[in-house]
Formats: sequence, C-alpha cells, structure tokens
Amino acid sequence: MTLPNAVRIVEVGPRDGLQNEKQLVSADTKVELIRRLEAAGLKAIETTSFVSPKWVPQMGDNTEVLTRVLAAAKRGVAYPVLTPNLKGFEAALAAGATEVAVFGAASESFSQKNINCSIAESLERFRPVTEAARAAGVKVRGYVSCVAGCPYEGLIAPQAVADVAATLLEMGCYEISLGDTIGGGNPASIARMLEAVMKQVPVAQLAGHYHDTYGMAIANIHASLQMGVAVFDASVGGLGGCPYAAGASGNVATEDVVWLLDGLGVQTGVGLGALVDTAAWISAQLGREPASRVARAVLAKRGAVS
Amino acid sequence: MTLPNAVRIVEVGPRDGLQNEKQLVSADTKVELIRRLEAAGLKAIETTSFVSPKWVPQMGDNTEVLTRVLAAAKRGVAYPVLTPNLKGFEAALAAGATEVAVFGAASESFSQKNINCSIAESLERFRPVTEAARAAGVKVRGYVSCVAGCPYEGLIAPQAVADVAATLLEMGCYEISLGDTIGGGNPASIARMLEAVMKQVPVAQLAGHYHDTYGMAIANIHASLQMGVAVFDASVGGLGGCPYAAGASGNVATEDVVWLLDGLGVQTGVGLGALVDTAAWISAQLGREPASRVARAVLAKRGAVS
Repeated sequence: MTLPNAVRIVEVGPRDGLQNEKQLVSADTKVELIRRLEAAGLKAIETTSFVSPKWVPQMGDNTEVLTRVLAAAKRGVAYPVLTPNLKGFEAALAAGATEVAVFGAASESFSQKNINCSIAESLERFRPVTEAARAAGVKVRGYVSCVAGCPYEGLIAPQAVADVAATLLEMGCYEISLGDTIGGGNPASIARMLEAVMKQVPVAQLAGHYHDTYGMAIANIHASLQMGVAVFDASVGGLGGCPYAAGASGNVATEDVVWLLDGLGVQTGVGLGALVDTAAWISAQLGREPASRVARAVLAKRGAVS
Repeated sequence: MTLPNAVRIVEVGPRDGLQNEKQLVSADTKVELIRRLEAAGLKAIETTSFVSPKWVPQMGDNTEVLTRVLAAAKRGVAYPVLTPNLKGFEAALAAGATEVAVFGAASESFSQKNINCSIAESLERFRPVTEAARAAGVKVRGYVSCVAGCPYEGLIAPQAVADVAATLLEMGCYEISLGDTIGGGNPASIARMLEAVMKQVPVAQLAGHYHDTYGMAIANIHASLQMGVAVFDASVGGLGGCPYAAGASGNVATEDVVWLLDGLGVQTGVGLGALVDTAAWISAQLGREPASRVARAVLAKRGAVS
C-alpha cells in the first residue's frame, strides 16, 4: 500500500479535451492554453491530433499549433500528438513532433463501430506508424480504450485489455495509457483490470486514463496508485465532457488529480493555483464555468475571501 | 482489504441538505421527498431539525414534517431528527421522534465561532439531551464535525476527533458520524483519522459523513470501507451545497455512493434508478439540475437512448 513518491501527469486537455468541444477554438487560444499549462508545471501536454480535418474539424490547425508550440518549446516538456495513420505521422514529423500516440480498443464492438475494423486489424494498421517512428527516433505512446467497459458491449474482460496492452508494448510503445472511456470503472474493477495487465506489461510502463462520468475517477486513481501506477492522464477543467452522453463529465479534471496527489503527499511538480487559473481561463474562453469540483471550490473560496 | 458485505446509508438530504437551501421549501415537498426516498429503499432518513426557526427558518415546519412522516412511517425505516438542546429534544419527542442526533466539533475555533462555547462545554450541554433520550427510550446518534479540517484552523489532529467521538459514545450515542465538514480530507488523512478514532470507538459504531467539495468523497468512502466502516451519510442530488463556499459542492450525493457500492458488489438495498429519479425531482423543485455526476450521467444516457 506504499504509494509512488512522484506522479507524472499527462495533460490531454488541448487534444482529447478540445476535440470534443463543438465550438471551434482558435489556434491562438490553443497555443495560449498550452503555454499556461507549461507555466503551471505540466511536463507532458498532448498538443493536437493529426487526423483528417473532415473527421475532426477542431484539429484542422494541427500543423500550425504544433509548429508554434515547438518553436518556443519549454525544456523538459513533452508535446505528444495523436497520429492515427502513416499520413498523420508524416505530417506530425514534418511539423517537428518528437512524440506521437497510437490507440487500440479493448472492445471488438467499439473498434468495429468507431474505426470499422477488428482490434487486431486496427493494431496492424499502426505497425507502419510505430516502425516509421522508430526509424525517425520518435517516441510512441499507446492508448487502450474501453478498459473498464464499452458503450456497446458493457463489461470488458481484463484479459482483453492485457492482450491489447501487450501488443502495443511489443510494437514499441514506451508507455500504455489505459482508458476508461465511458467512466464505468470502480476501484474494484480497475484493480482487477490492472492485475491482468501487469502480468504482461511492467507497471512502470502503465498510465491510468480515467473518465469521471460517474464520479469514480479519483477513487480509481487512488486504487491505481496503491498498485504502483505512477502516470495519469487528465484534462484541465475537465475539458471535453463525455462524447457518449451530452451533459455528463468526461476526462477527470487535472486540478482534481493534483489536489488528490498534493493531499497524499505525492509530488507532481504542478502548481494548483496556476492550474485552477488555467481551468478558469479556458472555461471562460468556452463561455462557461469550470466543471471540476476543485476549481469550483477554490474559485468560490477566493471569491468569499476577497 | 475485504470490504463489508452491506452498507447502511443514512440519507441526510431532507435535513442537512435542505437546511442550506436559501429558498424556503414547503412541508408538502419535504414529506414527498422523504416518501420518495423510502420508496427508493433508504432505511434511515434524517427528517428535520428541532432548532429555533430564528436560526434556521427552513426547519420551522419541523413538527409538521415529522408528524406527517411518522403518521405513515414505513416499517424498518428510521427517521432521526437533529436536536441541539433539551427544548428541541422535548419538541421532537412530542412529535413522536424515536431517534435524535446531537453534535460536537473536533475543532475548538469552529465550536467557538458556531455555537460560542468550547468543545467540552458543547458536549456537556448535550448531556441532558442524551439522558432524557435514554429515559424516553429514544436512540441518539452523534455527529462530529471538522474531522479532516476546519475552515478556521486548517488541519485537525486525529486525536482531537477520537476524543470527541469517545465522549459521544460514553454519553450513550449508538453511532458516531464523522463529518468532513469542509471536504478537505483525502484517503490518506481520512485513514489516519479513522485509525485514531478506531482505538476508542468500535468500527461497527462509526459512520463516514464526507463532503465532496474537492471531489474526494468517493475515494474517502472507499478508503473507509477498506478499514471496515459500513455506514455512510449522503444527500440525494448532493442537496445543500457547501455553506463555506457558495457554488461549491457539499454532502456527497447519495446516488454517487450507491453507484460506487453497486460497482463494488456491496449491498445497500437502495435502487439506483428510483434514487436518480428522486434527485431529478427534488432538483427540479429547487429549479436546477442535479449536482451529482451519477445523476447527470444516468439522465443524459436516458435522454440519448430515448
């Protein structure tokens, strides 16, 4: 039950968060968001996605955003980008990417409905990307989705998650991020899933990517910490919401994660005040209040004091 | 790490929740809320508070509400009421109460600022209430507030909590509810607090009463379950908000707790669907959306399906 001394937070707001926002966000705002996240102390910021703008118009400015961000890259900060295929990888490489991410679902139905092929086929499609990345000296991170449930199948067997995670590892991913895409996990089911995955992938190469749709993400992170997981994905201000249920929560908010880790005495290197400021700022840009409990409480307390 | 097989949920929405609502709620609505909570399967529902209506106008209808609720009491359901002094206790008894609750703070500053006396003095003031209750065959539940922090003092020593809990036990309380009044606790600090308290009060007589102000309540409940705590207070729809920071969350939502326990395979006897319906209904009465993640997600999913 000893917790890790330090945790690495991978901020996914600018990509995974904004990609689910209906209103188009300008490249200026995206770059400014990333600059503020860097200033708050985040050391890994998923910057954009090299997908077709026909599929994801929000990421149509990917080359501009990545180029501008990298032109003033902060020392020691990683700026991974999502690259669903070789064409996307080549565009990312041309824009200067030094880290990319690929993904696979742990659910056959989800894979079929989302990318119209089986899990095995989808992973094979990524092989050229991981090979090209290795040749170019680019790091590759792997995402597994639906690790604790699927919107079409319901429960997902822990072994199915372990199989996809092991394949991504074998393909050369340096880290596997385990995504509870629908937020259906709880501390018990997440622990069972991790137990199966840890038999095939060293825990030092695992990350938790938990959605807070049913308010379980913080408890799931705590359960994962107890099992040795020391990397977590999060989205500032809870950006993005839930693509499967409008009005519900999606990615766990980065400030909620930092609050938990601060309380547990686990180092993150992230400053909570600056992070809450950033959550308030990007939420204002989107015309709303921050969705996270911590941002709301900290801002309410500041208001009460002033 | 074995969890309890079953958990008793004490629903505090009609009292602790509504008491913090600015708009006056009618006795009809309060009684209807309690009927719906019974129908959802809750077996303990804090019904009202016998305080002076000058202090808490929202509870000015205490006799009417309790009388009406008890007139059609459901078998096996407890309807505790808060009684801060002997006058309140006598009024509660006259209205038919068979269970009352008293309270003490674990923070000297909080006690002084809220009820203008020391912790020790406040507990002595309750002694006539517990003695009268014993004489009348009325059960007494004890609340300790500020168990994981105080709005004035910051951190609170676990031993201070244990001392108040032990005194309430010695005065005849059958159960001690440990309140994280400002939601400042996390799984580590809650565990340290429980460890100290459990040296003086058997865990079977403890309840967790955690606020979700910083989104930690579900993780704190999970940590408490791991230590054997099997009673938790919660408020349907997260009713009540946070009296120390307008706009922030207060009591953990009952539906979030039930969702967690359902996922962990721990029995509650509460039906999630009926509970979410109740959260939606009372929130509509108050002119807003339910505050809880689970209610929002379940309602959004129903909307998406229909």
